[in-house]
Amino acid sequence: MPDRHVLVLAGGRGERFWPWSRPERPKQLLPLAPGGRSLLAATLTRALRMVPAERILVLTARDLVASVARECPPGVRVMGEPVGRNTGPAIGAAAALFLAESPKASFAVMPADHAIEDEAAFVRDLERAFVAAEHDSVLLTLGAPPTGPETSFGYIRRGAALGERIHRVAAFTEKPARDVAARYLESGDYLWNCGIFVWRARVFLDALEASRPALAEALQPLAGIADAAAFEKRLQDVLPACESISVDYAVLEHAPNVLVIAAAFDWDDLGSWSAWARRQPPDPRGNVLFGRAVVVDCDRCVVVGEGGTAAALGLSDMVVVHANGATLTCRLDQSENVRRVSEAARAREASEASAREGTVKSAQDSVKHSVKDGSQAWR
Amino acid sequence: MPDRHVLVLAGGRGERFWPWSRPERPKQLLPLAPGGRSLLAATLTRALRMVPAERILVLTARDLVASVARECPPGVRVMGEPVGRNTGPAIGAAAALFLAESPKASFAVMPADHAIEDEAAFVRDLERAFVAAEHDSVLLTLGAPPTGPETSFGYIRRGAALGERIHRVAAFTEKPARDVAARYLESGDYLWNCGIFVWRARVFLDALEASRPALAEALQPLAGIADAAAFEKRLQDVLPACESISVDYAVLEHAPNVLVIAAAFDWDDLGSWSAWARRQPPDPRGNVLFGRAVVVDCDRCVVVGEGGTAAALGLSDMVVVHANGATLTCRLDQSENVRRVSEAARAREASEASAREGTVKSAQDSVKHSVKDGSQAWR
Repeated sequence: MPDRHVLVLAGGRGERFWPWSRPERPKQLLPLAPGGRSLLAATLTRALRMVPAERILVLTARDLVASVARECPPGVRVMGEPVGRNTGPAIGAAAALFLAESPKASFAVMPADHAIEDEAAFVRDLERAFVAAEHDSVLLTLGAPPTGPETSFGYIRRGAALGERIHRVAAFTEKPARDVAARYLESGDYLWNCGIFVWRARVFLDALEASRPALAEALQPLAGIADAAAFEKRLQDVLPACESISVDYAVLEHAPNVLVIAAAFDWDDLGSWSAWARRQPPDPRGNVLFGRAVVVDCDRCVVVGEGGTAAALGLSDMVVVHANGATLTCRLDQSENVRRVSEAARAREASEASAREGTVKSAQDSVKHSVKDGSQAWR
Repeated sequence: MPDRHVLVLAGGRGERFWPWSRPERPKQLLPLAPGGRSLLAATLTRALRMVPAERILVLTARDLVASVARECPPGVRVMGEPVGRNTGPAIGAAAALFLAESPKASFAVMPADHAIEDEAAFVRDLERAFVAAEHDSVLLTLGAPPTGPETSFGYIRRGAALGERIHRVAAFTEKPARDVAARYLESGDYLWNCGIFVWRARVFLDALEASRPALAEALQPLAGIADAAAFEKRLQDVLPACESISVDYAVLEHAPNVLVIAAAFDWDDLGSWSAWARRQPPDPRGNVLFGRAVVVDCDRCVVVGEGGTAAALGLSDMVVVHANGATLTCRLDQSENVRRVSEAARAREASEASAREGTVKSAQDSVKHSVKDGSQAWR
């Protein structure tokens, strides 16, 4: 038990919750969890049921360290990354730190911005994963049994059963088309990839060395540094030299020893306004209202007024968000595509700012720029 | 000519342009006219083609005097009303002032918040109305030939022809239902009531005395005061004692000597976002954009971003307005009903303000209150 850690990945930018989410206050810091708590705070509450605060490491973007730290109970370590390099390098770096602290160290990886309500079931499944990871040289993934033909999640196809709700992994798959997702659902062989993992640091780094030796090599300067301050300092040089790659691509799709536990808990990555709304209590006409929201003759709308009034008249199945001095409107079934309009809006703002500064910069450049910014974040 | 005046009625609150319009910056002050000018400024430009600035009197709400005056060229007189009492008392009071200045005074009444593009035709029709009013004891109204079965305007049924495009008035009618409006349109006997009038002060006050003696009596303390400052001071006591009534109800529906000129100019009262949008240049997909508006995959939408970004994704036939820290969304064909949601939003804001002040005030009370405020304005 003393060798267990939790790594919380809190570097995402949550573009799909624009304009509520902003680069300086991304999705994991918004009060999207029950009781008006941030998703990060809710994630930490779950982590604290597994390990003490001192065993929790939160990795986030360097410019978010202060606001992330405000959500953390005393003892939790928060470290800033100088650049986003996706989950592969981040998990590899954390594994190096935990290994330096103890050769038997194991850790769970938890994204900071997902929704899980059944904490007791979550703790039981994670406990089971830790035990499995501590006894065998395996990489444990958590997969949520699908409840619909979702096209916004990656899927895990399970292979041979090793016990109740625990299987070898046959394959990881990309976000599927609707008809493929429907087939996955029907087959019963697929689970949603929750992005939650448990393994020993040593086992993970061995797998990384085998499947992605260049990345393992790039992380080498971190080896053996057990002092957190020294580690964070070195991380500033190491991370920029790493390729940007997800842990799925870097390790899980290649390793032979990957298992999946079919989660007994509910799970959602809250990837859009509609995903969030599904978990909120609706009014009698099915509207989900937050903040200063005013609806007249509306059905099944999501209306959010933060720092101002959002008013909707006579609408159905719409998203209306007033926040941070901007407004987003789209159909509920389009809310996964908010990035398309947020990028255009931010490009517009950037080009207006450039115009004010007297520099000439095309909107096209600004779009590229903002897309690039987005790709630095973990997704 | 020296006895001609123009009275501009600029007391409206323009609730239907919420949240862009606010009590302190109502519709007539918004840049809704071509070239980004305010409707009031455009109205004054038309008035200046009829009379010199010194012969223009603008009546508005007392708290709007400063912002209205900023739109006025030097010489124009701006007076504040302590309470809104609709058009009847306002026109009666102005008639008293003009009469005190000259027994032969004639004046045109122009709402400050309407749209007219063909200024030359407007000037020709007004000139004709002035000449008629100066030669006969008649009350001239201007009526716009209807271009569609509009249900948001009052109509004038024309009677016997007295000349080209000039008729006796057979009747004034309320805003009709759609099928009635269609019948009006087909008959060719009806004109839209533009709220533009021309008459001699003496003739108007005689008609008021005949049809609404109590109101004429209430205005009596203003008689004979030719000094503007003294007049405005007295107005503060007189107006609150007057009933609130439109000039149509108070005079025009009862007087036997009312004529109508079928206008040769275009006219719209811009009573809604959709009415305004019809006069704006659309983008290639029919969207009307104003300010910081961002649309992706939208058709025939009205998107306004004032002091912030309004972004719409994948919408058709919608109104999206971000202004003054609030957002309005509705279908384009519902934009005449914005008052329903603006009242709810303002009630909500008022009850939050009350809650902050620690007083208990129900939202219902606030609604009543804001409705009452609205009815004080000229419509």
